Amino acid sequence: MNYRMIAYILSRVLLIMAGLLLLPLITALVYGESVLPFAVTILLTALCGGVLALFRPRTRDIFAREGFVCVGLSWVAMSLLGSLPFIISGDIPRFIDAVFETASGFSTTGASILNDVESLTRSGLFWRSFTHWIGGMGVLVFLMAVLPMSGERSMHIMRAEVPGPTVGKLVPRARETARILYLIYSVFTVAETIMLMFGGMSFYEALLHAFATAGTGGFSTRNASIAAFDSAYIEGVIAFSLVLFGMNFNLFYLILIGRVREALRSEELHRYFEIILVSITLIVIGTVRHYGVAGALRNGFFVTMTTLSTAGFCTVDYMLWPAFLHTLIVMLMFIGGCAGSTGGGLKLSRVMLFVRTAAADVGRVVNPRRVSRVQMDGKRVAPETTGAVYSYIALVTLILLGCTVFVSFDGYDFATNFTAALSCISNIGPGLGKIGPSGNFSIFSDFSKLVMTVTMLFGRLEIYAMLILFIPSTWRRKS
Amino acid sequence: MNYRMIAYILSRVLLIMAGLLLLPLITALVYGESVLPFAVTILLTALCGGVLALFRPRTRDIFAREGFVCVGLSWVAMSLLGSLPFIISGDIPRFIDAVFETASGFSTTGASILNDVESLTRSGLFWRSFTHWIGGMGVLVFLMAVLPMSGERSMHIMRAEVPGPTVGKLVPRARETARILYLIYSVFTVAETIMLMFGGMSFYEALLHAFATAGTGGFSTRNASIAAFDSAYIEGVIAFSLVLFGMNFNLFYLILIGRVREALRSEELHRYFEIILVSITLIVIGTVRHYGVAGALRNGFFVTMTTLSTAGFCTVDYMLWPAFLHTLIVMLMFIGGCAGSTGGGLKLSRVMLFVRTAAADVGRVVNPRRVSRVQMDGKRVAPETTGAVYSYIALVTLILLGCTVFVSFDGYDFATNFTAALSCISNIGPGLGKIGPSGNFSIFSDFSKLVMTVTMLFGRLEIYAMLILFIPSTWRRKS
Repeated sequence: MNYRMIAYILSRVLLIMAGLLLLPLITALVYGESVLPFAVTILLTALCGGVLALFRPRTRDIFAREGFVCVGLSWVAMSLLGSLPFIISGDIPRFIDAVFETASGFSTTGASILNDVESLTRSGLFWRSFTHWIGGMGVLVFLMAVLPMSGERSMHIMRAEVPGPTVGKLVPRARETARILYLIYSVFTVAETIMLMFGGMSFYEALLHAFATAGTGGFSTRNASIAAFDSAYIEGVIAFSLVLFGMNFNLFYLILIGRVREALRSEELHRYFEIILVSITLIVIGTVRHYGVAGALRNGFFVTMTTLSTAGFCTVDYMLWPAFLHTLIVMLMFIGGCAGSTGGGLKLSRVMLFVRTAAADVGRVVNPRRVSRVQMDGKRVAPETTGAVYSYIALVTLILLGCTVFVSFDGYDFATNFTAALSCISNIGPGLGKIGPSGNFSIFSDFSKLVMTVTMLFGRLEIYAMLILFIPSTWRRKS
Repeated sequence: MNYRMIAYILSRVLLIMAGLLLLPLITALVYGESVLPFAVTILLTALCGGVLALFRPRTRDIFAREGFVCVGLSWVAMSLLGSLPFIISGDIPRFIDAVFETASGFSTTGASILNDVESLTRSGLFWRSFTHWIGGMGVLVFLMAVLPMSGERSMHIMRAEVPGPTVGKLVPRARETARILYLIYSVFTVAETIMLMFGGMSFYEALLHAFATAGTGGFSTRNASIAAFDSAYIEGVIAFSLVLFGMNFNLFYLILIGRVREALRSEELHRYFEIILVSITLIVIGTVRHYGVAGALRNGFFVTMTTLSTAGFCTVDYMLWPAFLHTLIVMLMFIGGCAGSTGGGLKLSRVMLFVRTAAADVGRVVNPRRVSRVQMDGKRVAPETTGAVYSYIALVTLILLGCTVFVSFDGYDFATNFTAALSCISNIGPGLGKIGPSGNFSIFSDFSKLVMTVTMLFGRLEIYAMLILFIPSTWRRKS
């Protein structure tokens, strides 16, 4: 392992983070709040980054393993250092709570242990929502955009941080790809902020909700989440934005350079819209008696998008809906957004590959003489890719069950435990039962919070970049 | 497809079933009940068998596909015809209920829609429990034992009916293997019957409970299930028998021919006992305050075995236990018995292969230069086997989620819906929530009962033999 190169990349990540922390510091200045929490954190983060920068890499070669370790260590360091402002300001005085909330932010889960969000300092609230925006696209992708690095090396890192079964290079150079991704991301965020301001939100609240939407995180500035605004327009803007942020960003790039037809042919995109339509229809059928057609459509669109994109904003308490819709919500939680989006979950294209591979396997058992091939977008999928999808889903299942077991020691009901674990691994936020839209994660013990913190990072980094940190052979000094 | 050969085998299955139905008919005679329900069913079943026997196969060649179709069709026919005695006698007057109960019996699920088991005729009750015994080892395995057939052909059928990731031939000839299996099965059943009679049970009740134990089914003759006897001795005999029936029958054969050390080296066996010990320990920890040490041990042993072996007998209402034990119970429901046992679930060796393959895949991603191999009992496992385990678990997951979705339309809570589906695909019986030990499946709609009937057969036949019946190309007249 090239430890020096890992230290080098880690130092750059921390220096970028110190830079990003200037934004909440400025917010504190604007609102006349204490700058101390952020000033101290910036100093400490920059100091860590500076010390790590002392290790000059002898060679800049890195392989897949180093890529995973870099990403895993960066996210752990960010979650720990990022919790300091909450602790220093007293917004979230307990260490484990602050780390949970920060990891929930960076991983774009949006699960909260706070009972009263509105009592936080405005700069603290800004930082909380800003972590969603940073985590949505990934801080190392940002690093790629600014750091001069060879394409091959960068790809090892992008592969570890960008969600989905395969990472498509938009352009030959990874640096350009990263820049294009961040450009699209920023433009959409600004557009949503403006649209939300038209709905009567202040600039501050509009920006924070745009951050949370862009990262498909789900933190709000209000205790009642989006329900506090009681506006069909605002719900519509957020749900529509979630449609966009749940799509593969490569498609926007294709549209941008005029290859619109190619973008619209994506099978994943077709399934994405089909799922959205089916889900809205089912919710309308199940709730039209309560809300009327317009209300059912409004709630159907919002809950579908907030669950499928794994944002996890709340407007209505769907625990009061007919029970079959709870099953629908769990299904949407499993699927998640498209590959290459900021959404969590298994990713739609992975679910599609999973179903198609299983179908092909059935064909092989049932009729051994026939050759069954798995196809996607008209191209044959390599056996390595379908194998990777199987083992990824196997790992998610094992972590999901493991997390459920650990969390269950707190003594809540099965639906709460299972959907809490699912919510963490899929980076959603709310679940069913006691952690439904009207509950939160403060009910759990410190041990469960720790398990869930790790699970959220596992979910966001799609297992491997976190798992590698727990494998002893990674740290053995051999090469 | 060799349709004539399928008809030939199906006719033999039905004639055997007509023969087996003589036992409940004799029971009816003994207890002075009407023999009509069984006489009519025997005539009808024999008639169907006779008509099918008119198709003389031109060639006796069958392949994997025909093997699956034979098994699938046989089990559907048995479930339909086997429900007739219940309908005719009025024990279970409604068609869908009778088919559910019969499929639940043959598939050794033991899920019941009856609120008052004790009001059934004694011959009806006998038939209900006897379906467990027939289904446990499989009627086609029985056919193999009596029908002269080439080894290759028989293996196609055994592979489709005997549970587990691989089918070990005990001896070169499949016919001998089938005879040995049925011999062990019968001896254990007789031994358990005698042991239960020592505990004060009548011969009738002892035999019926031995049937249900041997098939790891779970039907009882009492409304309160095993709790009605309130005897630590009886619970101990049943739990100990379940330990045996949950083990791979190949091991008994190895012990029988003196290869004891080989049998005891089985890794699956070691994990099996480890899981039993861990589960008992956890239940004792969780319930010792309520029951005291002796009571907690008794309940721990019984609930562990009834759940892990997927029998599903009830003594205590574990819904009243601490919630973390509910998660334990769900885990045991997933795992199930050993391969080659009469137990359901995923089968322990499959779970072991699943975990080991996932670990090897992690190794491959994290360190591409290292070769990761999956081993079992000191031998390297072929990639086809690990691939088959992945796709099997993928299919079970999809069917489990699909069944949960359909069942959820009845409007019960998520834990009820999810564990009802899990209980059906794993062939257990009870679940959590409304179908816990003190509930039953009569609460569901006809549609849900139909879905669950199919799911139970899917679970018992390990997907493929049922799935093939639903694939259009199976029925296309081409070859």
